[in-house]
Amino acid sequence: MNTQILISEVGPRDGLQNCKAIMPTTVKKRWIEGLYEAGLREIEVGSFVPPKLFPQLADTAEIVTFAKSFPDLCVLALIPNLRGAQAALEAGVDAVTLPLSASEPHSLKNMRQSHDQVIENVKAIRALFNGAPKAQRPRFEVGLSTAFGCSIAGVVPEDTVLKLAVRLVEAGADELGLSDTVGYANPVQVKRLINKVRGEIGHSRVKSVHLHNTHGLGIANAFAAFEEGITVFDSSQGGLGGCPASPGASGNIVTEDLVYMFESMGVETGVDLEKLMALRTLIQQGLPEEELYGFTPKAGLPKTFLPIDPPPQTS
Amino acid sequence: MNTQILISEVGPRDGLQNCKAIMPTTVKKRWIEGLYEAGLREIEVGSFVPPKLFPQLADTAEIVTFAKSFPDLCVLALIPNLRGAQAALEAGVDAVTLPLSASEPHSLKNMRQSHDQVIENVKAIRALFNGAPKAQRPRFEVGLSTAFGCSIAGVVPEDTVLKLAVRLVEAGADELGLSDTVGYANPVQVKRLINKVRGEIGHSRVKSVHLHNTHGLGIANAFAAFEEGITVFDSSQGGLGGCPASPGASGNIVTEDLVYMFESMGVETGVDLEKLMALRTLIQQGLPEEELYGFTPKAGLPKTFLPIDPPPQTS
Repeated sequence: MNTQILISEVGPRDGLQNCKAIMPTTVKKRWIEGLYEAGLREIEVGSFVPPKLFPQLADTAEIVTFAKSFPDLCVLALIPNLRGAQAALEAGVDAVTLPLSASEPHSLKNMRQSHDQVIENVKAIRALFNGAPKAQRPRFEVGLSTAFGCSIAGVVPEDTVLKLAVRLVEAGADELGLSDTVGYANPVQVKRLINKVRGEIGHSRVKSVHLHNTHGLGIANAFAAFEEGITVFDSSQGGLGGCPASPGASGNIVTEDLVYMFESMGVETGVDLEKLMALRTLIQQGLPEEELYGFTPKAGLPKTFLPIDPPPQTS
Repeated sequence: MNTQILISEVGPRDGLQNCKAIMPTTVKKRWIEGLYEAGLREIEVGSFVPPKLFPQLADTAEIVTFAKSFPDLCVLALIPNLRGAQAALEAGVDAVTLPLSASEPHSLKNMRQSHDQVIENVKAIRALFNGAPKAQRPRFEVGLSTAFGCSIAGVVPEDTVLKLAVRLVEAGADELGLSDTVGYANPVQVKRLINKVRGEIGHSRVKSVHLHNTHGLGIANAFAAFEEGITVFDSSQGGLGGCPASPGASGNIVTEDLVYMFESMGVETGVDLEKLMALRTLIQQGLPEEELYGFTPKAGLPKTFLPIDPPPQTS
């Protein structure tokens, strides 16, 4: 069993994207700084999408520059296409993630692209990155969204996911993440699909999962993924943004509860949970209308909770 | 992996005990009837405790008689002591559960009894049951509460739990359940303790767990217990009653979410989730002030959800 995992905080992108209100850039910077100070070492800070479509993320380039000032922080951004990849490269991100919806109807509706079109994008992005000096090439992940089911298509056959995984790696993706975009996954399915995808493209290319808590199974799914050796877990502080597919329901798993689970199991996250929980006040100030989720923040830390000493700082 | 599990619904006892308002007996009966019709086959219907202390459960004997009219329903009641055991025997329950807090300070505060005193009670109750005709003897469970930690004592040494387990079986308990009374457990700990206790008293005497969701890990802990071969899961519809140790926080794991997890994993619970969720209206009518928890009831069933055919009715 792994004794250490990495939490990839997606709140500043995925969380904010699903909020109606816009968090001011100054608050966003203080939030990212606070996340770093609490020990988070990978943050999805924004998305290179048209500002007209997502005004919440219009400051992404500025935020990337700001986030790059923190030592040892992996600054990740979402890119929808080649144009986004160009902008991400210019901004100097450490890693990009491109979503591909395993459900083609979902892909056509949300990204207006067929699977073939996305694969072509991946090839073009790979060529773009390969043309950049090696030190500037971002890590190139593809997030396989709706990998566990789709609110439009229903069941997404595992064979579809496997075939896409192979095509994506051939097209030039460095890593694939499995995403439960609409919160349909269960722990047995999580274990099975991780193993199947790894069987096709290799263990080292499947390190991360992106799970939702829509039906209350998010943390159980994370535990199941951990048992299979997954080491990178996306989550959102306060479960910010809710679930776009089910209005009123919760969405992303809550970073606070995820850190609590790992640290209480003796698995090091590097995150100081008290510092992290204290940040909720700032988020709430920046987005007064938004509901923040999380059980541990509500209940408080138990008497038995002994956080693991954070690793020595290297800079 | 087991393909079938039993959910022991504790809402009518554990849930109601922690509500300030009293659910009218007529509503309670309709609720139990509804639970039965939804497929629940074990229900903790009440507690043989002094009505002055717990007026919510003062109708327990009447409720037992009512519940006994449903074929194949295991009617379970909590008993705090020998007097409770006598009342339970007279009422004709199928099973009793006696709580023993593994944390002695918790035991002294909540039950006003030392470990030695509870062990003496177990012996006396065993003698009482052995004196009854075999067909009338209830199954005698002891719930090892605070087995995973205590809000008073903090850490509860696993050795304490193991020694108590051995003493309880020697004193005459048929089975032991491991209870996370204050919601401190994590999945790794759940797996470890189940295995350790089974190592002391045998696999067949540790079938059930009672988990709380105070820190958001309840369903993950249930999955971990399931992986270890646990087949009986306590839960409360709507997570009724909250957490007495952390006011405002959630308590018992929510039956609806637990059923959702198992059925979506292909594990048969026998419960019709839509019928179960429809019952929430009745509970809310009976207890208008009480908050009902649960993710699946809020999000609705996903498109991919295919409930398992219930087993053929035997009567």
